[in-house]
Amino acid sequence: MEAHKLSLKQNLRRIIFGTDTPWGLRFDQFLIYAILLSLLVVVLDSIESVSKTYHAELSVFEWIFTLLFTVEYILRVYSAPNRTKYIFSFFGLIDLLAVLPTYLALLFPELHALIDVRILRLIRIFRIFKLTQYMSEYQHLADAMAASRRKILVFLSVVLMVVMVMGTLMYVVEGPSHGFTSIPMAIYWAITTMTTVGFGDITPQTDLGKLIASAMMLMGWGTLAVPTGIVTAEMSHTRKSNRVDTNRICLACLREGCGVEDRYCAACGTQLPPIQ
Amino acid sequence: MEAHKLSLKQNLRRIIFGTDTPWGLRFDQFLIYAILLSLLVVVLDSIESVSKTYHAELSVFEWIFTLLFTVEYILRVYSAPNRTKYIFSFFGLIDLLAVLPTYLALLFPELHALIDVRILRLIRIFRIFKLTQYMSEYQHLADAMAASRRKILVFLSVVLMVVMVMGTLMYVVEGPSHGFTSIPMAIYWAITTMTTVGFGDITPQTDLGKLIASAMMLMGWGTLAVPTGIVTAEMSHTRKSNRVDTNRICLACLREGCGVEDRYCAACGTQLPPIQ
Amino acid sequence: MEAHKLSLKQNLRRIIFGTDTPWGLRFDQFLIYAILLSLLVVVLDSIESVSKTYHAELSVFEWIFTLLFTVEYILRVYSAPNRTKYIFSFFGLIDLLAVLPTYLALLFPELHALIDVRILRLIRIFRIFKLTQYMSEYQHLADAMAASRRKILVFLSVVLMVVMVMGTLMYVVEGPSHGFTSIPMAIYWAITTMTTVGFGDITPQTDLGKLIASAMMLMGWGTLAVPTGIVTAEMSHTRKSNRVDTNRICLACLREGCGVEDRYCAACGTQLPPIQ
Amino acid sequence: MEAHKLSLKQNLRRIIFGTDTPWGLRFDQFLIYAILLSLLVVVLDSIESVSKTYHAELSVFEWIFTLLFTVEYILRVYSAPNRTKYIFSFFGLIDLLAVLPTYLALLFPELHALIDVRILRLIRIFRIFKLTQYMSEYQHLADAMAASRRKILVFLSVVLMVVMVMGTLMYVVEGPSHGFTSIPMAIYWAITTMTTVGFGDITPQTDLGKLIASAMMLMGWGTLAVPTGIVTAEMSHTRKSNRVDTNRICLACLREGCGVEDRYCAACGTQLPPIQ
Repeated sequence: MEAHKLSLKQNLRRIIFGTDTPWGLRFDQFLIYAILLSLLVVVLDSIESVSKTYHAELSVFEWIFTLLFTVEYILRVYSAPNRTKYIFSFFGLIDLLAVLPTYLALLFPELHALIDVRILRLIRIFRIFKLTQYMSEYQHLADAMAASRRKILVFLSVVLMVVMVMGTLMYVVEGPSHGFTSIPMAIYWAITTMTTVGFGDITPQTDLGKLIASAMMLMGWGTLAVPTGIVTAEMSHTRKSNRVDTNRICLACLREGCGVEDRYCAACGTQLPPIQ
Repeated sequence: MEAHKLSLKQNLRRIIFGTDTPWGLRFDQFLIYAILLSLLVVVLDSIESVSKTYHAELSVFEWIFTLLFTVEYILRVYSAPNRTKYIFSFFGLIDLLAVLPTYLALLFPELHALIDVRILRLIRIFRIFKLTQYMSEYQHLADAMAASRRKILVFLSVVLMVVMVMGTLMYVVEGPSHGFTSIPMAIYWAITTMTTVGFGDITPQTDLGKLIASAMMLMGWGTLAVPTGIVTAEMSHTRKSNRVDTNRICLACLREGCGVEDRYCAACGTQLPPIQ
Repeated sequence: MEAHKLSLKQNLRRIIFGTDTPWGLRFDQFLIYAILLSLLVVVLDSIESVSKTYHAELSVFEWIFTLLFTVEYILRVYSAPNRTKYIFSFFGLIDLLAVLPTYLALLFPELHALIDVRILRLIRIFRIFKLTQYMSEYQHLADAMAASRRKILVFLSVVLMVVMVMGTLMYVVEGPSHGFTSIPMAIYWAITTMTTVGFGDITPQTDLGKLIASAMMLMGWGTLAVPTGIVTAEMSHTRKSNRVDTNRICLACLREGCGVEDRYCAACGTQLPPIQ
Repeated sequence: MEAHKLSLKQNLRRIIFGTDTPWGLRFDQFLIYAILLSLLVVVLDSIESVSKTYHAELSVFEWIFTLLFTVEYILRVYSAPNRTKYIFSFFGLIDLLAVLPTYLALLFPELHALIDVRILRLIRIFRIFKLTQYMSEYQHLADAMAASRRKILVFLSVVLMVVMVMGTLMYVVEGPSHGFTSIPMAIYWAITTMTTVGFGDITPQTDLGKLIASAMMLMGWGTLAVPTGIVTAEMSHTRKSNRVDTNRICLACLREGCGVEDRYCAACGTQLPPIQ
């Protein structure tokens, strides 16, 4: 294996996109801290008591991070093997959305807080620490979700119909004077109730309304079983055990199944040889 | 296989009830959009700020849709092979209920919003787009629910007894002065609590009441596991469903789901028209 | 098999305890209706608007039912094969508790509503209609619960410890001025939160309290998975399928697998012979 | 098997740390009652109506229990085979935390209630009554949790990201005037909603906010299926655990769970005392 002579662009690509070189790893670690700090700045700025005193300082920090991420975005686009593909990829769009709000906030101040979209960049965390085992767990979860995608869509469409019918029914029964001011409001209440959230900002006042609400709660309780059933059935199916059971034996008495951390045989007291 | 010479009534039947011809598909697609638009009209009319300005226009639209659905209903009754059977079938009743409220609202205005029952007509969506794969997912869910029907009934009857006993107990402990004004009201509260909805419109005020409520919440939490367990166990079992579903119908008796290779209807023995 | 000459006591026993004779079945059906009506009387009497007008009539009905159940209880004790065993059996105690509150209410009026304990007598419903299939479903559920009894006990003891520690922590953090007036009150709140009921009668006011509450909610969400997992694992294990697939064939073309409700063969149109 | 001649320190160790001798069992049983009573004292003292009348008496009891536990802690440190290891072990730290708050409360009175940490000492309950069967159930639950640890971490990190993004979005949509005073507050609300707790102290007021909240509730409902699926799949897999657990300890290194037939400790090679 010979050393490859890489162009500047290729070197840049390896550092920015890769994590298998010391500099690539350092770059990504630096990025994670920058993202976390920039999030902290946004969150602190939203707290009135903090913002009142330190708004100017926080604004300076935010612009520093935004410029940093803008430079990073430009470098990514420059060094990407296929620019169009990167720009419209999932990560490419998130990288863009992470810098846009600050610029847009100059025109529309209320969009400012949206830079919290930056948090999505933390998904990179899974790549950085070479946590392949976590990656596989994540893959397993994603697989189970993907496999049950269509069942969940069918389920959600049925739930939405039920919620609309029940919401309308409650709108008719309770009426605007009891807080059910419109059908969308009644549907919002029906979702609140069937998902067992139950804010309590709107509650049925009439006896008939309470009867219908009771039936809805019991229905919602039973219905909750369905997505769980779907996901569990998929997970049980795709579950693959890769546990290692020890076959370590004591050389003195040949007792099998000594634990990985045992230092002495539990049957005869002889010291066990170290695991190789 | 010979071409069948169909009468006007049979052609109408094939367009209105079937989805296996180009015109039948177009008719059902048009119907879905009409249903969705008519629902939008009802929902918009229920929002006060919209209704105040556009009530007249919305009323016109509603009458247009209602007349449209009335014509469709009459054509369905006319072209149905067995009129009595269609009128009292599930879809027949829904088709009727979709037009009735507008007429009844002339006499009883408060029934107006009930036309949202139209949403149930959207169940047709599953048939229209020849979503055979979704159909099988739906079938799978329905099978799992049907298989666990009796277990869920037994479970619900036990839950209802527990809820009635606990509700009565709370009525005795808390009494009308703390919001538990009657036994039905206390049972409503007990359902709210055990299903973990927890509106908070009525809450226990005494120490004993809070103790009982705590026990009920923990019970409800554990009980929630039961329907989930039932459905999940069924789903794990029936997971590998490999039913083949079609949307082919028999023109003589409207039986749905005739097999792709069937040449005669399994319900009435009539020869099936060839697939186009 | 010869007819047995039964004594009066044996005949009475067969009617009262058994459901396999016409009179035994009629007796139990009559009893169910009497229980349901007596419950209705209690519930109606608890509603103020009804009670104000019809209290006298409802009292008369209640005494009629109570006397009826008292006579029934005496007959049961008289005709029971083993009196002591019956009196201290589950059903024996419920039968007694169903009549006691009315008499006790003469001394302690507030105990009156407790006659709702009568609802527990409805458990007999499972026996009356000879619903053996429901009985087996019930048995299945009961088995799964019994098998996971010890796991659920261990789980509950861990949950109670967590709830006590978290409740105390919130009591220290929020203090009496924010509604957490004592440790038991804070524990009640912690149960409300971890079971995801969330009444909202007490809510954290400080930032630290909200942080702890957030962690508790996420914990409670995860913890909810445990009883479900326990029950589901048991149910999957004890699940026994006894579905019957048809082996009905068409006598004309020998097509196998005709449905139970099919009247004509789906392959050749020949009428199928009736199922014997 | 010969009888071992044990020193005072070893005898003390066997009584205090072990439960396999009559005195060791009696010591631990006495300890459980002392812990329960001391907890009762703390809880009663937090109730204002009780505290007002009996504060002096309760203080005396608390000091008695604290001194008792202090003596016990000193004896434990004295008789432990490896003092540093015991002091920094899980139980060692809990034993220390159980006595510290009372002393610290002399300086910082508000820390007083923290002595409820004593409840964690009740974990010993599982050991004392030689509840080997419960131990194995507990082990089973702990195994299933441990096996799904990484999946749950991945799941929680995804949930936290979603909650932060949704919280920020609601902060932008609803704003401080509707109760969403800062991003952390909005995230707290998002957790309240997605875990289906729904206190109702903050609720969306705008139509867009209600739409987003509805979507979040449905998402949260579906998401709830994931941890349940994870734990259930693990439990189904590990259901047939046939581990044998004992409460036999090695007097040299305090390793618990030595096998019934083991003659030497598997951790340090010391000969185990015979089972009495």
